[in-house]
Amino acid sequence: MRLVFGIEYDGTEWNGWQTQICKNTVQDAIEQALSKFASQKIKTICAGRTDSGVHAKGQVIHFDTKVNRQIWNWIRGTNAILPKSIRIKWGFVKSTEFHARFSAKSRTYSYTICNTPIESPLSSRSSTWIYQRLNEKKMQDASRYLLGMHDFSSFRSSECQANSPIRIINRCDLKRDGVFLKMEIEANGFLHHMVRNIMGCLFEVGRGVETEAWLKSVLDSRNRENAARTLPPQGLCLEYVDYGRDLLCERE
Amino acid sequence: MRLVFGIEYDGTEWNGWQTQICKNTVQDAIEQALSKFASQKIKTICAGRTDSGVHAKGQVIHFDTKVNRQIWNWIRGTNAILPKSIRIKWGFVKSTEFHARFSAKSRTYSYTICNTPIESPLSSRSSTWIYQRLNEKKMQDASRYLLGMHDFSSFRSSECQANSPIRIINRCDLKRDGVFLKMEIEANGFLHHMVRNIMGCLFEVGRGVETEAWLKSVLDSRNRENAARTLPPQGLCLEYVDYGRDLLCERE
Repeated sequence: MRLVFGIEYDGTEWNGWQTQICKNTVQDAIEQALSKFASQKIKTICAGRTDSGVHAKGQVIHFDTKVNRQIWNWIRGTNAILPKSIRIKWGFVKSTEFHARFSAKSRTYSYTICNTPIESPLSSRSSTWIYQRLNEKKMQDASRYLLGMHDFSSFRSSECQANSPIRIINRCDLKRDGVFLKMEIEANGFLHHMVRNIMGCLFEVGRGVETEAWLKSVLDSRNRENAARTLPPQGLCLEYVDYGRDLLCERE
Repeated sequence: MRLVFGIEYDGTEWNGWQTQICKNTVQDAIEQALSKFASQKIKTICAGRTDSGVHAKGQVIHFDTKVNRQIWNWIRGTNAILPKSIRIKWGFVKSTEFHARFSAKSRTYSYTICNTPIESPLSSRSSTWIYQRLNEKKMQDASRYLLGMHDFSSFRSSECQANSPIRIINRCDLKRDGVFLKMEIEANGFLHHMVRNIMGCLFEVGRGVETEAWLKSVLDSRNRENAARTLPPQGLCLEYVDYGRDLLCERE
């Protein structure tokens, strides 16, 4: 039996998703809780490995088990064991053809900037503080150069393990809500640090240091050295993974 | 010279505003940082004493000092000493007629409910989780009985030190934004636990256990025993203090 779960976590105190020697990862916490509930060792596959300090509202995992319980019991039982910063939000029983990573049609990440002269204590865990006044119109215009299929080598960290730097970005939507600027980027997949590197470049455009056309030249150069600095992780959140008809779950 | 500062804090880790024997209060932290910056002991007066775990976006304080520095230097210097969960957001020099508490025309508190079947890790510090589906129309309708001048004894904690239970509520606005229900209540002043007790009663109306008219009967009884349980502090935030023409500061 293949089970599929949707997970939300506050990544602030975690060393990212993936199990590591240094421990304290979300995957460790989830697998320990599931294994305790099921009284058997459970290993999970996720839709998108998030970095240290990055959040998720819609991470998706799958695993196989012979333990036969109602989905609601899995969710309630595992949540009772998990630390407060991680929760299973929903679950489905699926056929073994479903794969949390390979069945995904697209992933949507958000990046939230708190654009105030002084840092906001109530927003510091879930947004990146930028005190320079940003022009969201310029940032939105520049982001249009990223739409479609491109070689995103310029926005790829040196530690990226992907075979190909080619990705398809379907959507870049930037909205201002009071002091917050929230970018949503939907793509078939993302390279390591891709969103944070894109946001670093859009920051330079937004504060007027670079032009919209500069972003296109960075993209075209396929050279990470031409891009700006990587923005920090706390503004980043894995919002949603789209599986098309393979898994129909509502976004909150 | 009388200085007036606007303060934002994440109340999660603090024992409320007011200095206590048990320490670890926002007032302690602010006064220590201001005193260190000014190299002299500074005592502050605030607009509204918030309880343990309650947040503020727009707390206002005043104090007198002979230390002559630019306001921006006070803000930057003190913020550099303060812990990350507290920040001075703005400041003014005012005459000694201005008083953070007594000059206030009204205070606005918000109370945020996260209305989801399962608790949300990313919202648990700044909202109260309620899994029962709430009917916001009924809650808004019931809240209309509270508008105007009333004896709010039914919503007053036994520890309340106010001389009179009479207050004037100018505004109760409840809005749903996705899974969040946010109530804003503006009044000339609040009794101890008043917002959290009102929200406890509105919760009973929203989940269908009590009617809208029941809220009026609770108010009219002027008896705390007829009201519902107090909702927890993490959903509560002191949003804004209005001083009319005495202090014109924008709300973010």
